[in-house]
Amino acid sequence: MILCDIGNTFLHFYYRGRIWKEEKTKLTPKDSKELIMYISVNEDSTNTLLYAHPRCFDLTPYLNIDTNYKGLGIDRIAACKAISDGVIVDAGSAITVDIMQQGIHLGGFIMPGIAKYRKMFSSISVLDCEMNLGVDLDTFPQNTRDAVSYGMLNSILLMLKNTSKNKKIHFTGGDGKFLSRFFKDCFYDDLLVFKGMQKAINENFTSQGIYV
Amino acid sequence: MILCDIGNTFLHFYYRGRIWKEEKTKLTPKDSKELIMYISVNEDSTNTLLYAHPRCFDLTPYLNIDTNYKGLGIDRIAACKAISDGVIVDAGSAITVDIMQQGIHLGGFIMPGIAKYRKMFSSISVLDCEMNLGVDLDTFPQNTRDAVSYGMLNSILLMLKNTSKNKKIHFTGGDGKFLSRFFKDCFYDDLLVFKGMQKAINENFTSQGIYV
Repeated sequence: MILCDIGNTFLHFYYRGRIWKEEKTKLTPKDSKELIMYISVNEDSTNTLLYAHPRCFDLTPYLNIDTNYKGLGIDRIAACKAISDGVIVDAGSAITVDIMQQGIHLGGFIMPGIAKYRKMFSSISVLDCEMNLGVDLDTFPQNTRDAVSYGMLNSILLMLKNTSKNKKIHFTGGDGKFLSRFFKDCFYDDLLVFKGMQKAINENFTSQGIYV
Repeated sequence: MILCDIGNTFLHFYYRGRIWKEEKTKLTPKDSKELIMYISVNEDSTNTLLYAHPRCFDLTPYLNIDTNYKGLGIDRIAACKAISDGVIVDAGSAITVDIMQQGIHLGGFIMPGIAKYRKMFSSISVLDCEMNLGVDLDTFPQNTRDAVSYGMLNSILLMLKNTSKNKKIHFTGGDGKFLSRFFKDCFYDDLLVFKGMQKAINENFTSQGIYV
């Protein structure tokens, strides 16, 4: 069984302890005997996968968490399912932040991903510069590149500090590792979404004798 | 004399106590006898003004503040010149934040403007929604629109709170009035840039007998 988390930019795969990502236009062939269990937030990429591989199964209906949030993305549900208490930060094209307490989802919010910030400034010519991810956050910036980087990075970090308080942060996603450096006593786990998917599979299928 | 602050989106004018903005493609004719004193961060729009009006004067060389910041935009210099102590927030296409202390500029940073956030999310189809500027900031959001709005608004407000501490905030720019509502004991002044320009004119010209 292969697990697949279909995002807006990449398809993320998990197979026998290994994870990797592929672009939808460059999908590699998989062993046709393997079942691909997938979740998706992008219909186009899903169709590409379904066309490329004969045995795919949409895990969406089997992934549920206790929440009042309307329209929670299935990848966020999967990551939240893996953590009963804490703040889950998935830092990719967007940065999603979700708060779990005793297995209940209290809500969440969304910020632009780090790469999106640069795009946002690119229409303002004087601000179209590479981010300095090593910008000093303890003094006020003294040039445009640092000013833009400080505004981006510090606003993300302040939001996370303000949200986490006495909860632990669980980072995942492409920029999760980078952001985790700014917090003591936090976790980084690039398998979080897959762990939630596996949990749903265990709950829904193995008990019925369908071992995958 | 007409004052003109040429931004990336609009040309902002001040004349006899009245302010208004014009698009560069729709400049109205001005009394050709009036001198237009201008500053600019956009060369295209400047050229349009110079072509449309015979008597224009670039005030840039006369606007100076004490700073180590390299490449500080001339509109930011003008606004800072008007305030000796405090945090100056110009909320337009971008939100620029500058810190002044005893007439010295300590540095500053830049965040995307409110309208830019929506654009940033528009490439992610499920997040392409209008902002809810009335989103409740005291509870965690329970739907996508609130999640995106909370992420945008709260990150701006946290950055401003974190920067201002015991300093007063002086808001200006298109979204300055809206943002000022979230702070007690702050100022909103849509003339801030023009006040700095006028100060530079007073310092540099009137003492030499050139009354404008």
